[in-house]
Amino acid sequence: MSSPDTPLDLTIDGGALTARLVDFPSVSGNEKALADAVENALRAYPHLTVDRHGNNIVARTQLGRAERVVLAGHLDTVPIAGNVPSRVDGDLLWGCGTSDMKSGVAVQLRLAATLPEPNRDLTFVFYDCEEVEAFRNGLGVLVQAHPEWLAADFAVLMEPSGGVVEGGCQGSLRCDIVLRGTRAHSARSWLGDNAIHKAAELLRRLSVYEPRRVVIDGLEYREGMNATRIEGGVAGNVIPDECRVHVNFRYAPDRTVEEAEAHLRSVFEGYDLDLVDVSPGALPGLSQPAARDFVAAIGGEPRAKFGWTDVARFSALGVPAVNYGPGDPNLAHKVDEHVSLTAIAEAEERLRAWLS
Amino acid sequence: MSSPDTPLDLTIDGGALTARLVDFPSVSGNEKALADAVENALRAYPHLTVDRHGNNIVARTQLGRAERVVLAGHLDTVPIAGNVPSRVDGDLLWGCGTSDMKSGVAVQLRLAATLPEPNRDLTFVFYDCEEVEAFRNGLGVLVQAHPEWLAADFAVLMEPSGGVVEGGCQGSLRCDIVLRGTRAHSARSWLGDNAIHKAAELLRRLSVYEPRRVVIDGLEYREGMNATRIEGGVAGNVIPDECRVHVNFRYAPDRTVEEAEAHLRSVFEGYDLDLVDVSPGALPGLSQPAARDFVAAIGGEPRAKFGWTDVARFSALGVPAVNYGPGDPNLAHKVDEHVSLTAIAEAEERLRAWLS
Repeated sequence: MSSPDTPLDLTIDGGALTARLVDFPSVSGNEKALADAVENALRAYPHLTVDRHGNNIVARTQLGRAERVVLAGHLDTVPIAGNVPSRVDGDLLWGCGTSDMKSGVAVQLRLAATLPEPNRDLTFVFYDCEEVEAFRNGLGVLVQAHPEWLAADFAVLMEPSGGVVEGGCQGSLRCDIVLRGTRAHSARSWLGDNAIHKAAELLRRLSVYEPRRVVIDGLEYREGMNATRIEGGVAGNVIPDECRVHVNFRYAPDRTVEEAEAHLRSVFEGYDLDLVDVSPGALPGLSQPAARDFVAAIGGEPRAKFGWTDVARFSALGVPAVNYGPGDPNLAHKVDEHVSLTAIAEAEERLRAWLS
Repeated sequence: MSSPDTPLDLTIDGGALTARLVDFPSVSGNEKALADAVENALRAYPHLTVDRHGNNIVARTQLGRAERVVLAGHLDTVPIAGNVPSRVDGDLLWGCGTSDMKSGVAVQLRLAATLPEPNRDLTFVFYDCEEVEAFRNGLGVLVQAHPEWLAADFAVLMEPSGGVVEGGCQGSLRCDIVLRGTRAHSARSWLGDNAIHKAAELLRRLSVYEPRRVVIDGLEYREGMNATRIEGGVAGNVIPDECRVHVNFRYAPDRTVEEAEAHLRSVFEGYDLDLVDVSPGALPGLSQPAARDFVAAIGGEPRAKFGWTDVARFSALGVPAVNYGPGDPNLAHKVDEHVSLTAIAEAEERLRAWLS
């Protein structure tokens, strides 16, 4: 195995390249060495224009094609847990970031290096700090600093999706609802006003709430509204003066943030809501020509993406986006993370077919 | 001011004696020096039989009277907070334990020393560790080790009651109810089963619960059933698999523990209850002859005691008991704890009138 100091060779096969990337430790906040290697490798190809902002690299073809598509992936991983360097065993490559998402990055790099004349203009985005607080997210930083670098008709985020196209993503709102009462000794409870008891009606509304299902571009999205935390109480013998309920509303991407918030507030009419997280959804955009061709090239049945992903950042720029990558999402962040070498080759082959 | 080593003089007035007792630090677990002083002072009086178990002292007259009454008080205090030694300012004596309850102990000691021929046989109980965990409580230790020392027709616990007779005490049951569900990512909530939402029905029952009021021996007791704690949740984006509700049922002393538990279980029919505290109530016993005379001698309107006190330990022995003491219950455990010297003198005077 070559040392991390050896320049990246983008002509080796996707599995071998994934192993090279895994052997470049790049835990969030420590992506510089890998970003340098990616930048240097891409600058060797005259058909690419390469830009850099921090540890975020954007490489573009400038062929004047009718459509432009983005292939995006993050360079960072969760902290290493004794699972680097990588290790091959049969068809499986083991190690931190194999599924999430250095296999996807390897496919991006392979396509960037080996498709000098794609049928669509291509924008390859490599970014940092996806696994940490949202404000550090490199794609979010690029959206603010250089939105023109990200302009496109369609985007593919190469997060692990098990080789299935996952369209768009649902939005997420989180709020706190604080119920207030009056403290008293529980032996004289009539002198107090029990804040926990006031949660009864609020939880009733949640327990009878019928979440909506909606089909968008042929994908069914299923919403959900849930109390994910509740806490109240002072001591075993005190009538509690406060009870705090944390509610998470996951909503289909046909609602805007404003519409989702209005719906949440209508469910909790009569309560004060304190919004603590507001994340827009992303429409799958599968009716776009580039997307239709993409789905046909990848094959299989696209499905809706429920969890929030960075595709929403493209959606906010007006770029429809899907998730598609060779990794297994169920293995992300696990000590025994691995990826199928066959899946890496298949992803590259299908994307190449779409773009050739 | 005399040093703690000087023997206790039980002939000085109640306020001065209270000050002496306050100047004997006796935080729970450190009552030995004060218990020694109390024992030695009482042994000087030939009309008293004095027994000791640990730091618990019991002094009795043996006059063959038709009735026997107990005057009981604890020797310990909560931790000192810069409020010892005591300090007199006008009618107020300041210091740790002035109200809770060295003023009551001083009245006990004064009566023990100066009533060689009471109209009822008297049992004076001084015990340790009332302010800490129930299993260390000296009165509870005596109940187990020497119940015959506590035999009586009526008992007065001299805890601070603001000079008002407080009859009996309510019982208390505490239980945990754990609601269980299935964990899932909140973006795919239909794969889970929200344990917090299951608290809706349980809290509804509590919020509509109509607590009983009942008059016993002319005193009105008011029950209460309350959730005093609730907690559930794993993370803001996880459907919670557990929600724990802590319920406290305060019940009037006409219910036995078994009856109170059966009632609690009937309210929460369909749920599993885990009882974590079971404390019986105490009947006021104001229809007893000794109690009737006591109430007449003290004057004022007796009221029900709601909070649990050691009177329940007498009740469990078949001895009706009331709370009556010169201290102010609202000052107990406070840094600015104090007591009225007039109130100490009045309590002694009224008890003396009852017992003469």
